[in-house]
Amino acid sequence: MQNKLYAALDVGGTKIYTVLADANKQIIARQKTATLAEAGPEKVIKQLIATVRQLMKTEQLQDAQLAAVGVCIAGFYDWHNRILVHSPNLPGWSNVPLEEILAAEFAVPARVENDANAAAVGEVSFGAGRNHNNVVFVTISTGIGAGLIINGQLYRGSSGVAGEIGHFIVQPDGPRCGCGQQGCLETVASGTAIGRQGQKAAACGQSALLQSLVSEPAAVTAQEVFKAARLGDPAAQKILHEALTYLGLTLVNIVNLLNPSAVILGGGVTAAGDEILLSLRKIIAEHAVSAAAKAVQLKLAALGEEAGVLGMLALL
Amino acid sequence: MQNKLYAALDVGGTKIYTVLADANKQIIARQKTATLAEAGPEKVIKQLIATVRQLMKTEQLQDAQLAAVGVCIAGFYDWHNRILVHSPNLPGWSNVPLEEILAAEFAVPARVENDANAAAVGEVSFGAGRNHNNVVFVTISTGIGAGLIINGQLYRGSSGVAGEIGHFIVQPDGPRCGCGQQGCLETVASGTAIGRQGQKAAACGQSALLQSLVSEPAAVTAQEVFKAARLGDPAAQKILHEALTYLGLTLVNIVNLLNPSAVILGGGVTAAGDEILLSLRKIIAEHAVSAAAKAVQLKLAALGEEAGVLGMLALL
Repeated sequence: MQNKLYAALDVGGTKIYTVLADANKQIIARQKTATLAEAGPEKVIKQLIATVRQLMKTEQLQDAQLAAVGVCIAGFYDWHNRILVHSPNLPGWSNVPLEEILAAEFAVPARVENDANAAAVGEVSFGAGRNHNNVVFVTISTGIGAGLIINGQLYRGSSGVAGEIGHFIVQPDGPRCGCGQQGCLETVASGTAIGRQGQKAAACGQSALLQSLVSEPAAVTAQEVFKAARLGDPAAQKILHEALTYLGLTLVNIVNLLNPSAVILGGGVTAAGDEILLSLRKIIAEHAVSAAAKAVQLKLAALGEEAGVLGMLALL
Repeated sequence: MQNKLYAALDVGGTKIYTVLADANKQIIARQKTATLAEAGPEKVIKQLIATVRQLMKTEQLQDAQLAAVGVCIAGFYDWHNRILVHSPNLPGWSNVPLEEILAAEFAVPARVENDANAAAVGEVSFGAGRNHNNVVFVTISTGIGAGLIINGQLYRGSSGVAGEIGHFIVQPDGPRCGCGQQGCLETVASGTAIGRQGQKAAACGQSALLQSLVSEPAAVTAQEVFKAARLGDPAAQKILHEALTYLGLTLVNIVNLLNPSAVILGGGVTAAGDEILLSLRKIIAEHAVSAAAKAVQLKLAALGEEAGVLGMLALL
């Protein structure tokens, strides 16, 4: 019988990414599955179990070879009571004892983490954060979240919700957020927010270019806004400038508070790459406390969609 | 010969507070001296040495009984190179190797810390933060600073400047700060900022009450603004409401990021006490992420002007 194996899963609202790794945490098999999110938690948990079993079968491995299972998932994971309290992208998930369910199913230790925390650990262990001890990993996609590495260790905070930077209040009289507050960073700088601004600009005739990129204004996403801005469209450039200013000043405040040696940017929005990086670096250099600005490197994440599962493997 | 002793000093722009403590870190003697700040670093360092020697002499103790000396001081202390880079309240202090000087003078280990860091350690070791592992200590007086306790340990950040919340940018088009930026938290919510707003209100005739409390508008300080607000003066109440809103939303963002179990408020401005505490608690309860708001206690510092020296004693 082969050495022990690890299974790690990243559960998102649209897809489940599952990997198997050997005793050295090297990935030996991968699989992507569409999440049946609308079917509710019971069905999705069955999917998680099935993807692990299927990968093991394909690799001709048996349950007894499994050493541990790790899952990362968006949402509020209550670390003390080991309960997934809530997941914004998964309807019906409320107080799910996911660790317990998976541990019982596979008869091995199981571990659940917030997805931004797992990605932070992944980037520090294997990616852009290697050789850094104090790291803020920021993920910007539908929402905005962060994972903190302090003195080389994942920092979860006193009740497991550290890193909720998407709900930094940056515009007290700003748009209403899904959380009930007004002017959360997510409402002005997430992919969703950039897309929504782009839709408005297309619908109001402020940007003929944005209109020309889509069949109807409602189809504009952050991607089109980035594209239009790159092509010189003033309305799209203004939308991005505002979003990046809010994001940049938030990073300035985080750099002033935590004096990290690296801030790592991940998530869909950062696929736009260097433009974002250069704008944000400039804002930090110009506005953060000098000694903190000098100490920090702003980098793009290196592991892409594998950050979460690699983080879980590092934690197992 | 008696057990070993510790000396701890808190060096401010106006006074030096010196204590001697026994082997159990119990204070056995105290002394306050006016800082000869304008005379420059050499003179002030001589004062530090003299106050320790004088206290020892009064207590009939000898140099050989000293085990260690600790000093806390406002400013940027470069922890790696053990150099006090800059102190905002002490003219002429630039790159002073204070640890080295004191260690050589007394032939014992010496240690220097930023004053907010020392006070954070003091409050966690002996004051309002006991039994808390993740604590943000915020000091609000002339300026605004913070000391962070993470997993029970003082967190200094990658280059020793963690906790610079006075330079959080909260109003990007706001007043110019001493640091060169615009709209730093200090410029809208420090004792200095509250006093300056009060001076303006008195000078412009917006508050007859504020005018009546002082000989001339320039004499208004934060204390008069608090007093006038308590007496029902609308202009003073508006000034405080704005300052507390900026401070409160900054605490909301810090609570969302760090999910601490306690935020402790110290410094001169908090002498106003319960009013501030109640306002800020309300803002945190209403605007922070629910799980983080529930986990945090907002408390007033318990050690007053002794927080810094007690923190140094805990660190020695």
